[in-house]
Amino acid sequence: MKLAILGATGAVGSQMIKCIEERNIDVDLTLLGSKKSAGKEIEVKICNTKKSFKVEEATNESFKNCDFVLGAVEADLAKQFAPSIVASKAIFIDNSSAFRMDKETPLVIPEINPEDVKWNKGIISNPNCSTIITDMAIYAINKVSKIKRMVTATYQAVSGAGVKGMEDLEEQTKYIALTSPENSVIKNLQLKSFKYQIAHNAIPCIGSPLDNGYTTEEMKMQNESRKILHLPDLKVTCTCVRVPVMRSHSIAVSMELEKKLSVEEIKNILEKTEGVKLVDDLANHKYPMPLNTTDKDIVEVGRIREDLIFDNGISLWCCGDQIRKGAATNAVQILELMIK
Amino acid sequence: MKLAILGATGAVGSQMIKCIEERNIDVDLTLLGSKKSAGKEIEVKICNTKKSFKVEEATNESFKNCDFVLGAVEADLAKQFAPSIVASKAIFIDNSSAFRMDKETPLVIPEINPEDVKWNKGIISNPNCSTIITDMAIYAINKVSKIKRMVTATYQAVSGAGVKGMEDLEEQTKYIALTSPENSVIKNLQLKSFKYQIAHNAIPCIGSPLDNGYTTEEMKMQNESRKILHLPDLKVTCTCVRVPVMRSHSIAVSMELEKKLSVEEIKNILEKTEGVKLVDDLANHKYPMPLNTTDKDIVEVGRIREDLIFDNGISLWCCGDQIRKGAATNAVQILELMIK
Repeated sequence: MKLAILGATGAVGSQMIKCIEERNIDVDLTLLGSKKSAGKEIEVKICNTKKSFKVEEATNESFKNCDFVLGAVEADLAKQFAPSIVASKAIFIDNSSAFRMDKETPLVIPEINPEDVKWNKGIISNPNCSTIITDMAIYAINKVSKIKRMVTATYQAVSGAGVKGMEDLEEQTKYIALTSPENSVIKNLQLKSFKYQIAHNAIPCIGSPLDNGYTTEEMKMQNESRKILHLPDLKVTCTCVRVPVMRSHSIAVSMELEKKLSVEEIKNILEKTEGVKLVDDLANHKYPMPLNTTDKDIVEVGRIREDLIFDNGISLWCCGDQIRKGAATNAVQILELMIK
Repeated sequence: MKLAILGATGAVGSQMIKCIEERNIDVDLTLLGSKKSAGKEIEVKICNTKKSFKVEEATNESFKNCDFVLGAVEADLAKQFAPSIVASKAIFIDNSSAFRMDKETPLVIPEINPEDVKWNKGIISNPNCSTIITDMAIYAINKVSKIKRMVTATYQAVSGAGVKGMEDLEEQTKYIALTSPENSVIKNLQLKSFKYQIAHNAIPCIGSPLDNGYTTEEMKMQNESRKILHLPDLKVTCTCVRVPVMRSHSIAVSMELEKKLSVEEIKNILEKTEGVKLVDDLANHKYPMPLNTTDKDIVEVGRIREDLIFDNGISLWCCGDQIRKGAATNAVQILELMIK
């Protein structure tokens, strides 16, 4: 099987390589990147054998004879290369937002809607990171009692902004530690990714502003969840906030269900849910935290309680690694599903 | 006017002193603290004249001849000293949770329900910090169209856990910067205040666990807001989360109103609201952020948009300094109200 990774040197692309190593996927690998990354040597262990790969510059010719392409580039580049990927008869598993809402493109979380890969026409989209983590926490509940509407507030890690976002937090953490630990404010701030200082701060804007007052990132929670969960009428109000956490997202969820489920019933459902770990014992201070899901594929769910504003409501809190299940792992799981 | 500050050396007590200096309140001051703090010298500028005060150990005798006592101690100590404060005929303005839900005790935010101080019987309670900041953002809207229910998710600063909470974040920030900037996890963690590492993390538990699955802190948002806003039937689902921010809280609010108000109407209301600053221009990246409200008395409100799950719904985001308006400033404003 011939696989190309487009954007192999970024945060998500590097994690895709790790996932392929960990999962012992036997592939004939091509690593593609920008002109700047071309020539970089990367060692990859394929089925326990270490091989060295040279990153090649991605061009429209790069995908010939490929069976699959994992995309870890921004939407504009995904759109640019998609036609030549599809023309080469490879399946493009794309992590960008470019094709997610396209009617011809399945949007897939393998634990939730694996059947949707069947109607792909050459492209399969990987959902938004916060959406994946939230939907993982709620999909099994939705199978037992349909979700009608929900309010979500996110606590999103800097890794969602890629390597430069992580560098911003690293550098700002150092600056505060060395110069002004008591007042947090960085003078002469040098920013690589974010609009404002993120260390010791929270930025309530991710993605681009829309006319309805929401950001593109906030609307993904409703629009992508509708498509993944097969709930065309689902209503979601979302507030997306960047917080100074390195690579795990957290989401507070309040939702109204079609029929009442008790907290015990919800816990029983989540204990059996694939890809999810129930961490719920408030009295003993057990709850999901972003540091605990860092560099893990599992999504942790806890703080399960009856919602106080809905008749059939449930509130919960979930955490998951943004680079892994929120991006790379989910894409590689789609690849595994396609190989099967 | 004779004023004692009980707990004068803590984060909130120190800020109360600053507020008295800034607001030129003419008082005959007594600073009270624990046995450990007794003897500590603190310089205070009263109406532009610097005076040095020695912290005295608080005893039941400390309040004789006092007109007012500002309380900046935990609930257990507030309960311990309240009888002798009341017996001494002083008015006890208490920042702890001890008497907030007591039917004989007004719970007051001066911009919102100043009239409630009139029925005090010797004690006036200062509300919880997240509740003050949230209620400041919504009280003027509630006057025009009653709030029926709301979902809130908090992003709470470490200062809410006092000086030790702030030291935890300071020390952990230094540790990460100096030893492991890329992976965030602190080994051999030494904690002063929190149960877990807070730097580069989020802890979804503030206060004590209750039988209904909520924490005491989360239930304050509903129960205290009912009393402050005079909305006995208000329903609130709250998720309280500690984030690595030094001293400003942020809250994401989604609420259902009795009658529809447009986003423009809400903005017009908030532009005229005392104690509030409207910061709302998403297209130009203007929105409240905790760093921007640090060490300020104002509560910033922004990200105002039609809520997507309620018919008459509004969502917004607000930030305010936890030690100032969330605690010390509000208490000193109550003092000013009483002096008038």
